[in-house]
Amino acid sequence: MTLPLTVPPKPGHQTFLWSPLVTDLDTLDAHIAIIGMPYGNAYEPHAVSNDQTRAPDAVRSVTDRVCRSLERYDFDVGGPIYADRALKVVDIGNVPFDIHDQRSHFGRAEATVRKVLKAGAMPITIGGDHGIPIPIFRALDGEGPVTLIQVDVHIDWREHVNGVHDGLSSPIRRASEMAHIDQIFQIGIRAQGSARSEEVAAARAYGANIIPAFEVHDAGIDTIIDRIPDGGRYYITIDADGLDPSVMPAVEGPAPGGLLFHQVRKLIHGLVRKGRVLGMDIVEITPSTDVNNITSIVAGRLIVNLIGAAVRADYFDAPPV
Amino acid sequence: MTLPLTVPPKPGHQTFLWSPLVTDLDTLDAHIAIIGMPYGNAYEPHAVSNDQTRAPDAVRSVTDRVCRSLERYDFDVGGPIYADRALKVVDIGNVPFDIHDQRSHFGRAEATVRKVLKAGAMPITIGGDHGIPIPIFRALDGEGPVTLIQVDVHIDWREHVNGVHDGLSSPIRRASEMAHIDQIFQIGIRAQGSARSEEVAAARAYGANIIPAFEVHDAGIDTIIDRIPDGGRYYITIDADGLDPSVMPAVEGPAPGGLLFHQVRKLIHGLVRKGRVLGMDIVEITPSTDVNNITSIVAGRLIVNLIGAAVRADYFDAPPV
Amino acid sequence: MTLPLTVPPKPGHQTFLWSPLVTDLDTLDAHIAIIGMPYGNAYEPHAVSNDQTRAPDAVRSVTDRVCRSLERYDFDVGGPIYADRALKVVDIGNVPFDIHDQRSHFGRAEATVRKVLKAGAMPITIGGDHGIPIPIFRALDGEGPVTLIQVDVHIDWREHVNGVHDGLSSPIRRASEMAHIDQIFQIGIRAQGSARSEEVAAARAYGANIIPAFEVHDAGIDTIIDRIPDGGRYYITIDADGLDPSVMPAVEGPAPGGLLFHQVRKLIHGLVRKGRVLGMDIVEITPSTDVNNITSIVAGRLIVNLIGAAVRADYFDAPPV
Amino acid sequence: MTLPLTVPPKPGHQTFLWSPLVTDLDTLDAHIAIIGMPYGNAYEPHAVSNDQTRAPDAVRSVTDRVCRSLERYDFDVGGPIYADRALKVVDIGNVPFDIHDQRSHFGRAEATVRKVLKAGAMPITIGGDHGIPIPIFRALDGEGPVTLIQVDVHIDWREHVNGVHDGLSSPIRRASEMAHIDQIFQIGIRAQGSARSEEVAAARAYGANIIPAFEVHDAGIDTIIDRIPDGGRYYITIDADGLDPSVMPAVEGPAPGGLLFHQVRKLIHGLVRKGRVLGMDIVEITPSTDVNNITSIVAGRLIVNLIGAAVRADYFDAPPV
Amino acid sequence: MTLPLTVPPKPGHQTFLWSPLVTDLDTLDAHIAIIGMPYGNAYEPHAVSNDQTRAPDAVRSVTDRVCRSLERYDFDVGGPIYADRALKVVDIGNVPFDIHDQRSHFGRAEATVRKVLKAGAMPITIGGDHGIPIPIFRALDGEGPVTLIQVDVHIDWREHVNGVHDGLSSPIRRASEMAHIDQIFQIGIRAQGSARSEEVAAARAYGANIIPAFEVHDAGIDTIIDRIPDGGRYYITIDADGLDPSVMPAVEGPAPGGLLFHQVRKLIHGLVRKGRVLGMDIVEITPSTDVNNITSIVAGRLIVNLIGAAVRADYFDAPPV
Amino acid sequence: MTLPLTVPPKPGHQTFLWSPLVTDLDTLDAHIAIIGMPYGNAYEPHAVSNDQTRAPDAVRSVTDRVCRSLERYDFDVGGPIYADRALKVVDIGNVPFDIHDQRSHFGRAEATVRKVLKAGAMPITIGGDHGIPIPIFRALDGEGPVTLIQVDVHIDWREHVNGVHDGLSSPIRRASEMAHIDQIFQIGIRAQGSARSEEVAAARAYGANIIPAFEVHDAGIDTIIDRIPDGGRYYITIDADGLDPSVMPAVEGPAPGGLLFHQVRKLIHGLVRKGRVLGMDIVEITPSTDVNNITSIVAGRLIVNLIGAAVRADYFDAPPV
Repeated sequence: MTLPLTVPPKPGHQTFLWSPLVTDLDTLDAHIAIIGMPYGNAYEPHAVSNDQTRAPDAVRSVTDRVCRSLERYDFDVGGPIYADRALKVVDIGNVPFDIHDQRSHFGRAEATVRKVLKAGAMPITIGGDHGIPIPIFRALDGEGPVTLIQVDVHIDWREHVNGVHDGLSSPIRRASEMAHIDQIFQIGIRAQGSARSEEVAAARAYGANIIPAFEVHDAGIDTIIDRIPDGGRYYITIDADGLDPSVMPAVEGPAPGGLLFHQVRKLIHGLVRKGRVLGMDIVEITPSTDVNNITSIVAGRLIVNLIGAAVRADYFDAPPV
Repeated sequence: MTLPLTVPPKPGHQTFLWSPLVTDLDTLDAHIAIIGMPYGNAYEPHAVSNDQTRAPDAVRSVTDRVCRSLERYDFDVGGPIYADRALKVVDIGNVPFDIHDQRSHFGRAEATVRKVLKAGAMPITIGGDHGIPIPIFRALDGEGPVTLIQVDVHIDWREHVNGVHDGLSSPIRRASEMAHIDQIFQIGIRAQGSARSEEVAAARAYGANIIPAFEVHDAGIDTIIDRIPDGGRYYITIDADGLDPSVMPAVEGPAPGGLLFHQVRKLIHGLVRKGRVLGMDIVEITPSTDVNNITSIVAGRLIVNLIGAAVRADYFDAPPV
Repeated sequence: MTLPLTVPPKPGHQTFLWSPLVTDLDTLDAHIAIIGMPYGNAYEPHAVSNDQTRAPDAVRSVTDRVCRSLERYDFDVGGPIYADRALKVVDIGNVPFDIHDQRSHFGRAEATVRKVLKAGAMPITIGGDHGIPIPIFRALDGEGPVTLIQVDVHIDWREHVNGVHDGLSSPIRRASEMAHIDQIFQIGIRAQGSARSEEVAAARAYGANIIPAFEVHDAGIDTIIDRIPDGGRYYITIDADGLDPSVMPAVEGPAPGGLLFHQVRKLIHGLVRKGRVLGMDIVEITPSTDVNNITSIVAGRLIVNLIGAAVRADYFDAPPV
Repeated sequence: MTLPLTVPPKPGHQTFLWSPLVTDLDTLDAHIAIIGMPYGNAYEPHAVSNDQTRAPDAVRSVTDRVCRSLERYDFDVGGPIYADRALKVVDIGNVPFDIHDQRSHFGRAEATVRKVLKAGAMPITIGGDHGIPIPIFRALDGEGPVTLIQVDVHIDWREHVNGVHDGLSSPIRRASEMAHIDQIFQIGIRAQGSARSEEVAAARAYGANIIPAFEVHDAGIDTIIDRIPDGGRYYITIDADGLDPSVMPAVEGPAPGGLLFHQVRKLIHGLVRKGRVLGMDIVEITPSTDVNNITSIVAGRLIVNLIGAAVRADYFDAPPV
Repeated sequence: MTLPLTVPPKPGHQTFLWSPLVTDLDTLDAHIAIIGMPYGNAYEPHAVSNDQTRAPDAVRSVTDRVCRSLERYDFDVGGPIYADRALKVVDIGNVPFDIHDQRSHFGRAEATVRKVLKAGAMPITIGGDHGIPIPIFRALDGEGPVTLIQVDVHIDWREHVNGVHDGLSSPIRRASEMAHIDQIFQIGIRAQGSARSEEVAAARAYGANIIPAFEVHDAGIDTIIDRIPDGGRYYITIDADGLDPSVMPAVEGPAPGGLLFHQVRKLIHGLVRKGRVLGMDIVEITPSTDVNNITSIVAGRLIVNLIGAAVRADYFDAPPV
Repeated sequence: MTLPLTVPPKPGHQTFLWSPLVTDLDTLDAHIAIIGMPYGNAYEPHAVSNDQTRAPDAVRSVTDRVCRSLERYDFDVGGPIYADRALKVVDIGNVPFDIHDQRSHFGRAEATVRKVLKAGAMPITIGGDHGIPIPIFRALDGEGPVTLIQVDVHIDWREHVNGVHDGLSSPIRRASEMAHIDQIFQIGIRAQGSARSEEVAAARAYGANIIPAFEVHDAGIDTIIDRIPDGGRYYITIDADGLDPSVMPAVEGPAPGGLLFHQVRKLIHGLVRKGRVLGMDIVEITPSTDVNNITSIVAGRLIVNLIGAAVRADYFDAPPV
């Protein structure tokens, strides 16, 4: 039994922003593709279907809280999200997991993103744990040099954990090994994660820009945005725990002192203005610990800000409607 | 069966601030009247008794968390709330709903506020959804010109929704049509609501001052307060979703990036200092989604700040006790 | 039956930071001692085992969320918490409560802290309600002059409540009566507590520095830190309600407008840099109303920040490992 | 705006037993019609959209727990539910409520049932509160003499409550006034309801057979079934509180000592065997207080037992598939 | 400070059956007195205010679910609960606990019951843990010989636990030592409790009739009732865990296989018919683990059955109203 | 990396009945071995670590609710569980799951049971889903002829589901294919499961005794026990859903009308008396949907009844202590 690259959301779950569901990726015709990547590379059996696997459909489910309808005026972006243009946003469903062959999974995820990029669409991915950007990074190999912007508590630079190299502790290490990844900015860092002193040393040796959350609170997000070189090709990976637990409570490892929504929103708009944002992912949402779905709603709002900013920056060849 | 203008809170619910319950409005003798307005103008059957209808009694129920006792020192206002004066605060109960004649409801609400104003008392109303300020605005017709200050996610400028003109999507549109309403400030606006581009255009055509939440975060609330002309007669309508969901989580349509408590508190104190605050309402609290009653507590604290500020600004002819 | 000074955490609860459990306090050999003080001086029967009594073990239980492992890099402190030194941190368990003789309890608590101080260790205590710092203050009588730094909603200056003098409403009043307590800073004050005008007058007569939360938001925490004299011997008592309910929701009397984590973190680091922090307690956590254990996690993170800052300020004679 | 007789279930809710959704009742071609009747005749505003209004869609939602698939072997009925016959079961959706004209509602409900009966189909209705059988009883006027079988805690014989005659306290009184209703059996009666001594007297004057739950436990359900005359035309109305709260916990007025599932199941099978069951309703489920959806599941299982028994008793002209 | 014998329920809690609240026990004029005894004799600090202490007010709070109104027809007892007689039922509030002198507590409880008995009233007590019947038993010393009827999982025959002789593990042992206690029936016994083989031996040596729950299920409750001698003076003590956890889930030590409501109801009615029931208590309800308040409701229904049966057996000199 | 046959329970989880933990199965010396088998053979990714995988540790965690201490008198078995004998009960932990090679899992489970049987110990297994008895059945190949006693809603006779032959829908089909399995009794069957008519036909062709729950309620469990031949070698597999949802609510597919605790308890005691019970498993508990842990407690009580009955039937060569 060969699995398809993507499958529809679970029954009862709408697509994100009510966009058309497209699972035939060979004929994809879109400006933006929403991708669900529920599954990562588990360290132990309970993690195969960890809480994060439920996040893509959870975020889709709050579409009507993220956006009342597409033609409404959205004050975060200054008008209708699609700016009254014929923007082609599609939801390509979820990358499935082959229970009998876990190793095939990230290959499928990578192939999915390649199809999206080949079609000229911007991939916006909802994880899943923080392992899932790894195949996305790989698929970006024709898009470099890429400036990687990470919002996170953790720096995620482990070589491997228990022999698993593509797990949720390693995405930035993996990125650092890819020729097409250039500068790395790690914003919101605080508390502890999987990093030991040797991982911090490795990150510094690479030249990663580690920007603690406390620096953002002190200096202001504008200052941080200014530190990122203009004119780049940016890829944004947002770990929900990078934001403060009061903003996105549904995370596995909450740490106080995180970024606030208006800071991350400004970061996204700033990057769009500076150069080309190639894509974005939001990972590590654990829906079972959410409070009134606010974490999923915030995730959706971040995506909507990216779309609204990008279309206003004329990223897409979309005529007025 | 003719309904009275107001009825007592449900059994087991105290009055707000343990104030005397007065439902004979013809002999009302008070400086401040707390009014519960549970019911709005529903769009569909489930909304007749929506979650918001439970908010007036929910806020009353946390009185002992809002205020330990009236003679205690309140650091938000710099002394006992009533400033050791013989302030007459009464709770006039809830405006009831006639299940057999919905249309009579807002007439009763308006008549209630007129009685309060006629008695020379400041009306402070706990909703209810955001339709309930409409009859309050109408009752203010002898108090103009009124500067309307709204704290909200949404601009609420719909002409009607499904033929309902006095619903929760239309209060500011209705206000804009009243001769006694002058300038309108809409603060904390963000994300999406019922507004389409045409409603934004209408608001702008009127000259409404739309101040997005992000502008407040960037410029600071002091700057915003400065933009409001001094010496006015202000009426404040606060939609709980105008504050950040981390501050007031119990709302139907939470949107990240909202105002913080200290910003709204400063706005209230600032308006009291600038001129005459005629009254205030707090609406759109959904008690069933609250977290440790914090939304009701915050609502109560906002009211207590208004009362404490107003009495210190010598609004009321209340002698020392 | 004579009770020991301390007893181990309840079965199934680890020690804080997986530190060794030591209950023989006569041979204590440590730089830092973690103390649980579940029980205060109750005003009524339900308060004997109030929710706060469960906090010490609740905070211990989230050790693996506070800290992934001791050798990991902690970005709040800039390296492994213990800075790769042979720091001796021990958990000395909980001070037990004699159900047949309540009055003996605070004597036992005081004796426990004296043993810790005598061993040259810094006491870090997890309450319990806000009565529990009283015996700690007493035990500090050989450490003066002590500058007392309180983070709280409430000023806690009651002479007594219902005849109970060592209850949760009185710790700062008790402190003010001790010869070895010098200046008092009360930061984050807002809303109402047990204080009446007479308690505020008493605090002012003493010369207590009452710094409302709103002043912190306006002036910035750096300004507040600057107001505290350098070179002091500081003791820090943190009531969880001093922080904002969005940061530490599990408190009995939440009040909006509180301090944020990054402000309190900076305060702790600032005090360590200024002089000698003698010890710290965190009180008034009510685990049953927590949200995803975040309040316990924040408590742990505050402690970790103190430890990490103190070891880097060379407080302890701990050689590199 | 004229409302249709029925509308589809809310988005995201399947039909009961995945049956086809049919809302054109003029061309109805079915053996059995599933009807949702969310709305009753409210006594006060909160009851307009009481918890019971959510029950029809809640029961539909557990279809896959009630029945794994239609061709599976169901041991409650001894084979596939439809007995391998071409049984035409349709779900005709929910009778809507006109918020602007409550009085029209029961007329619409009655007309719906008349359409079903005219099409020769057996109506199985999911309420709603216990007012909703009243229009069903009315629609049965061409089916008499009808033996009414009620499973309930309460006898429901009030003339009116607060002037409302068609409310949840009155269905059996209303039935008793209809010429086509003959004998009445009221089974499971216990504790208190709306009945005063005068209602009990009225029921007895009519000749209603009041069978307390305790009599069922003592004598056994077989004895009770034997007391009901054979060869009748039965209509069954089941109030969920007639069953024990351990079986159907989601009811507004739980009373211990109720009927068990196997007793009610046997009653249904017994009635089908004795004569002709004309239809059935299940009312008074309050989904918000359910435990693991068990109340909705039990409701579904009772319906499935009726369908499976009826098809095996050759009620319907349905050929083998 | 001398405590009164009883104090009113907590604010917001009605009396049981809306009966008059009487705390002046010297002038008590009543047929039946409802007593709350929240506090027992704790084994450790957390047990001073264990969950059971909240049960008296929890049961009072569901009065309107136990009984819709006093004049309604109650099918458990065959008419209005008070049988249309001028029955004087009073609620005498809760026996308070002196936090500074625990030993005084059971003296106060005993004195309370003596006052009730002296006034000729039947005491019906809501606990509290299973220690609270001990002072009740003592107060019955003028009523002997008393046949003690216990419904329980456990036999409760411990001499003491940790030196506490009047704790929840010892009530039947204490009863066995009282001259006025004659036969003892222990019904519903199963699983494990505090009893070791020596306690079972002691019970048997005394001649206690231990009737396991499984014997009740096999033989039927009628057979068990027949085994209790007629014409006795019975006192009934019901531990909520004696009933099945599906009937009364809110208990600390649930054990499957327990008595059902209709069995215990029949036992109460049977005892009333056989002789004189002197009083009853219901203990060991833990409201925080209840499911839809059903445990409190069942407790209330058991009391209502006793009252209704007793008044119909002409226990009280109450004329028709 | 080769996995051991079993691993200890998760940190913080005690062993069942506080029995010694033994994971060296080659030197096993025991009369009874408690085995956890968390993992089955999943049909899809989320099922790899389904809720049932948490059941073994959940049941262990309620040991102190199942049994207060081993020397206490247990009225379900008529004395201390081990009957004052030197019974060797050990807990051998959980069979682990190799995330990289799922197919190896049931081999490890089977090998574990073989080790237990080889040591002469009775295996009592806590699942896990209903696939986990399959390797147990296989390991019994030297114990035949075995009479298989199943308590369940479902007959579990599927040849395979989606190509998985050893899944939770197939255990009895697999058993039927084993030469050492003789008669099969399936008790409590009702509602629907995976069986289609062809599976029922297969079961009947085999001669399986399908005994619906309703037959047990009608005829009594004694009659059913009598139908099972005496003198057999019985293996008991209990699916928690075989009991009524009011008794064991924490199951995935609850169906009303199930067996009661006292019926299943009697079945276990009856089988022990009739012949030799070789072992038992309890499966399909979903801890996340439990109510006050009652399902885990009931599971533990069933095991305790088996142990207590078996030791009293002299199954084990255990001398008095």
